Amino acid sequence: MAGQTWRVGPIDLNADLGEGFGRWALTDDDALLTVVTSANVACGFHAGDPSTMRRVCESAVAVGVRIGAQVSYRDLAGFGRRAMDVPPEELADEITYQIGALDGFARAAGDRVRYVKPHGALYNRAVHDGVQAAAVVEGVRRLDPTLPILGLPGSLLLQLTVEAGLMAVPEAFADRAYTAEATLVSRREAGAVLEDGDTVVQQALRIVRDHEAEATSGEVVTVEARSLCLHGDTPGAVNLAARVRQALIEAGVQILPFT
Amino acid sequence: MAGQTWRVGPIDLNADLGEGFGRWALTDDDALLTVVTSANVACGFHAGDPSTMRRVCESAVAVGVRIGAQVSYRDLAGFGRRAMDVPPEELADEITYQIGALDGFARAAGDRVRYVKPHGALYNRAVHDGVQAAAVVEGVRRLDPTLPILGLPGSLLLQLTVEAGLMAVPEAFADRAYTAEATLVSRREAGAVLEDGDTVVQQALRIVRDHEAEATSGEVVTVEARSLCLHGDTPGAVNLAARVRQALIEAGVQILPFT
Amino acid sequence: MAGQTWRVGPIDLNADLGEGFGRWALTDDDALLTVVTSANVACGFHAGDPSTMRRVCESAVAVGVRIGAQVSYRDLAGFGRRAMDVPPEELADEITYQIGALDGFARAAGDRVRYVKPHGALYNRAVHDGVQAAAVVEGVRRLDPTLPILGLPGSLLLQLTVEAGLMAVPEAFADRAYTAEATLVSRREAGAVLEDGDTVVQQALRIVRDHEAEATSGEVVTVEARSLCLHGDTPGAVNLAARVRQALIEAGVQILPFT
Amino acid sequence: MAGQTWRVGPIDLNADLGEGFGRWALTDDDALLTVVTSANVACGFHAGDPSTMRRVCESAVAVGVRIGAQVSYRDLAGFGRRAMDVPPEELADEITYQIGALDGFARAAGDRVRYVKPHGALYNRAVHDGVQAAAVVEGVRRLDPTLPILGLPGSLLLQLTVEAGLMAVPEAFADRAYTAEATLVSRREAGAVLEDGDTVVQQALRIVRDHEAEATSGEVVTVEARSLCLHGDTPGAVNLAARVRQALIEAGVQILPFT
Repeated sequence: MAGQTWRVGPIDLNADLGEGFGRWALTDDDALLTVVTSANVACGFHAGDPSTMRRVCESAVAVGVRIGAQVSYRDLAGFGRRAMDVPPEELADEITYQIGALDGFARAAGDRVRYVKPHGALYNRAVHDGVQAAAVVEGVRRLDPTLPILGLPGSLLLQLTVEAGLMAVPEAFADRAYTAEATLVSRREAGAVLEDGDTVVQQALRIVRDHEAEATSGEVVTVEARSLCLHGDTPGAVNLAARVRQALIEAGVQILPFT
Repeated sequence: MAGQTWRVGPIDLNADLGEGFGRWALTDDDALLTVVTSANVACGFHAGDPSTMRRVCESAVAVGVRIGAQVSYRDLAGFGRRAMDVPPEELADEITYQIGALDGFARAAGDRVRYVKPHGALYNRAVHDGVQAAAVVEGVRRLDPTLPILGLPGSLLLQLTVEAGLMAVPEAFADRAYTAEATLVSRREAGAVLEDGDTVVQQALRIVRDHEAEATSGEVVTVEARSLCLHGDTPGAVNLAARVRQALIEAGVQILPFT
Repeated sequence: MAGQTWRVGPIDLNADLGEGFGRWALTDDDALLTVVTSANVACGFHAGDPSTMRRVCESAVAVGVRIGAQVSYRDLAGFGRRAMDVPPEELADEITYQIGALDGFARAAGDRVRYVKPHGALYNRAVHDGVQAAAVVEGVRRLDPTLPILGLPGSLLLQLTVEAGLMAVPEAFADRAYTAEATLVSRREAGAVLEDGDTVVQQALRIVRDHEAEATSGEVVTVEARSLCLHGDTPGAVNLAARVRQALIEAGVQILPFT
Repeated sequence: MAGQTWRVGPIDLNADLGEGFGRWALTDDDALLTVVTSANVACGFHAGDPSTMRRVCESAVAVGVRIGAQVSYRDLAGFGRRAMDVPPEELADEITYQIGALDGFARAAGDRVRYVKPHGALYNRAVHDGVQAAAVVEGVRRLDPTLPILGLPGSLLLQLTVEAGLMAVPEAFADRAYTAEATLVSRREAGAVLEDGDTVVQQALRIVRDHEAEATSGEVVTVEARSLCLHGDTPGAVNLAARVRQALIEAGVQILPFT
C-alpha cells in the first residue's frame, strides 16, 4: 500500500460552472463547488452573464475552489458547440477579452483567474487545428504567461502551450470512453459517454491510481492527467461527480488543485 | 499674465474611442490619440469588439494616452443610447464585467485601466438616478476602489462616487451649450450642440482658464472641470478637437491626464 | 342556471411558450399545448431561438392552438424584463421584425400568426406609456391591420389599438391579485401572485362566469376578459393551468380561441 | 450584330444593401437603389437592424427594385464572414427566421421577399458543402417553394435548389477574376478582385453579351448568369456599379429583374 502511494500524485477535479444566462440556469453551481477543486467558469460568450460570474467567483473563493476561465467562441445561440472559422488574430483577442472579464470578478472576490480551459467546439478544434490552438495560447500569453491551460493530453493545444513557455495541464475524463489511441471516442458514436455510475467511478480510480484506462477495443491505454473533468449539467451528473470524489478520497488519493 | 497662471491648472482632454464593432468603424482612433490625454475605450456593450479594444490599448500605451473604460448598457443595437431599467445588482455586475474585459487588453499592452466613464444613456441616467448611479459606483469599487470615475459636475454619479470614497473627476464640454443652472442644454433643444468652430474653441478656453461659460440665457455660470470632453465621430469633429488642443497649448494651458 | 349560461361567453386560454434559447429550456411547451387555445410564442428578442419557434409552431398547428407573436424589447440578457427607452420608430420596427420572423414558421407549419401580445417590461410599459403603446400598435398595423392585440383591460395599449382600428383583446389573470381599481397588484408587493391552487381556480371561474374578481381590499371589481392568461414556467404552474382549464370545462364554459 | 442580339437575354443587377447595424452604416442604399434591379437586404444576422430593413424595403418598393433576403450565419461580430458548423436543422431554421423577418417589412411596404441569397461565409460554404447547402434550400422551401435562390453557377447550392424543385438563379461577378475552371479566384490570392474600372466594365459586358470571361490563365471560360453581382460598400464601388449599368444599357442590354 505504502509502496504504491508514491505513484499516486494528487488529482484536481474540474467541472464547468456558471453556464446559465440571465433567466436561464443550467449548472448546479453550489453543489458542484462542494465537489471540484477547479471551476471552469463561463465568461459570457457561450454562457455566463455577469451576475452569475460574480456569484460563482464569490462562492468559489469562499470555499477555496480555483477559478478558471472557460473560454469559447462567441456563440450564445449555439452554446459554443458550433465550430467557427475565426481568424486567429480575432480569436486570440476574444480569448483575452473573456479572461479579462472573468478576472474582474475573481479579483473583486479576492482571488484571480488561475487557469484557462477552452469550451465545446473550441476545445475540440484546438485538439487538431494548430492555427486556432496557437491563437488560444496567444490570447492567454498576452494577458498573463503564468496562466496554465487545461486541455486534452496529446492535443495540439497543450503542445503549443508548452512550446510557448506556458504550463500545460492534461485532463482525463471519468465518464468518456477511450479509443485504442488513448483519445476520446467521438460523441457521435454509441457508448461514447459512460452512463453506468460504477463504471465511471472505476475508470476514475484507474486513471488516477494507475494512469491507464481500458479502451473500447479492450486494450489498456496510458492516460496521464493532472485533472479529472466531471460533469454537472444534470442532477444525476452532480451526484455522480460527488461519488467519484468520495471514491478517490477513500482510495487515499489527494484531491488538490493544480495551481 | 504670470499672476493669472496660478489659476489655470492642467486640463485633461478625453474622447470616446474604439466605437466600431467588427466590420463597422466609427471613431478615427489614430487621429484622436494625437489629440487626447485620456481615451474612453468602448468595452463591447454598446460598441467595441475585442480586436479593436486591443489595438486601441496598444496604440494608447504607445503614445502615453490613459486608458479608461467607457461602460454602457448592454445595447449594441441602440449604441447604448436607450435608457434601460437594469436592476442595480445586475448593472453593477455589467460594469465590473466591462472594466475587467478592457483591463485584460490594457494589461497586455503594458498599462491598466485608469478610470471609468459611463456612456450614452447610462451617463445621462446616472446624473439624476441615484440607484443606477450607485450601481455604477459599486461596480467600479468592487473591482478597484482606486479607479476614478469621470462624469458631469453636479451629477449624482460624482456625488455618490465621492461618498463611496472613490475619486470623482468632473468634465466639461467645449461643444455643448450650458443652461443658467450650469447643466447641459438637452440635445432635444435647438442649439444644444455648438457647431461653430470658433465658438467651441472660445468656450473651451473660457472653461479651462476662467472656470466659467456663458449660458444660453446670457448669464455667466461657473464650470469646474479637470477634463474636457471632445468628440471624434466625424472627420470635422477630429479636426475641431485638434484645434481646441492647439488653442489651449497656445494659451499656455498644460494638457495633462488626471491620472 | 340555464338562464345564466347566456352571460358566459367562450373564453380563450393563453400562455407563454417557446421561452428557451438554444441550450436553455424554460417552458414545457408540449404540456402547455394541451391546456391553452392561444400560444404566445417568443420571437427571439427576449427568448426563442429559430428551432424552438419552428417546433412550437408545428405542434401548435397540429393540435389547433392559435399562434401569437410574443413581442419584446431586444434583451436576451434580461429576458425582456428591463424597460427600455426605445425611440418609437425603432420600437415599431422591432415589433414588425419579430412578428414577421414568427410568421415565417407559422406559415411553414400551415397557419399564420393570429395575434400579438407584448412581453414582460414592454407589456407593463404599454399599459401607461402612450408613445411606446402607439409604437407597438404601429408595428403591428403596418404588417397586418387584421391582427388583434392581446393586453390588459384599461391599458393605453388596448385603447390605442382600438383607435387605430385594430381589434383589442382584453385578458385577465387567474393567479394575480387585483386592486380596487381592477388593475393588477404590483409584483413588488406581497400577495401579488396567488399561490394557492384553489384560490386560483376560484378566481378563474369568477372572472369567466361573473366577470368580476375580489380585490385585495375586499371589494368586488369588474373584470372583462376574452382570454385568461395562464403561466407555465414551472411544473407546478402547468399542473395548475390544467386544473383551471378542467374547472372551466366542468362549469360548462366553452374554451375557444378569440381568433 | 442584329443577328447576335437574340443571344443576349436580359440581365439582373444585384447588390448587398442594408448592411449597417444601428449606429453603424455601411452600404449607400439610396445610391445603390438607382443602379440595381434586385436588392439583397441584410436580415439581422450579419447586419441589418429592423429600421434599416424597413427603410430599404420601402425605398426598394418605391423604385421597383426587387427585395431579396440576404441570409447569413448568426454572426454580427464577424459580419457573417466566419464559417460555422451549424447543424443543418438549426441552419434551416435560422434561414426561415431571417426570410420571415424581412418579409414582414417587404409586405408592409407593399411587396414581398422575392428571392434568397446567402451571404459571406455561408455563400462560400454552400458552394461545396452539401449538408449546409441542403439546409439553406430546406429553410427556403419550407417557407415558400416559389422563392428562387441566387448563387454561384456550378455550386452545390444551386444544384440542390433545382433538385428540390426550386428555381436556381446563377450570378456572375463583374469585378472578380475567374479561374480556368470558371470558378472565382480566391480572395486570398492576388488579383482576385479586379480594381481597374475599365476592366470591370469590359468583363461585365463580355459576361452578359458573350456568356464568357477571360480567366487569369488567359483561357476563355463560359460564364452563364441571369444576374450580375455588383458591390457597394465604398463610394468608388457605387460609382463603378453605375458605370457597369450604363455600359450595359448603352450596349443595348435589357436590365430586368429575374423575378
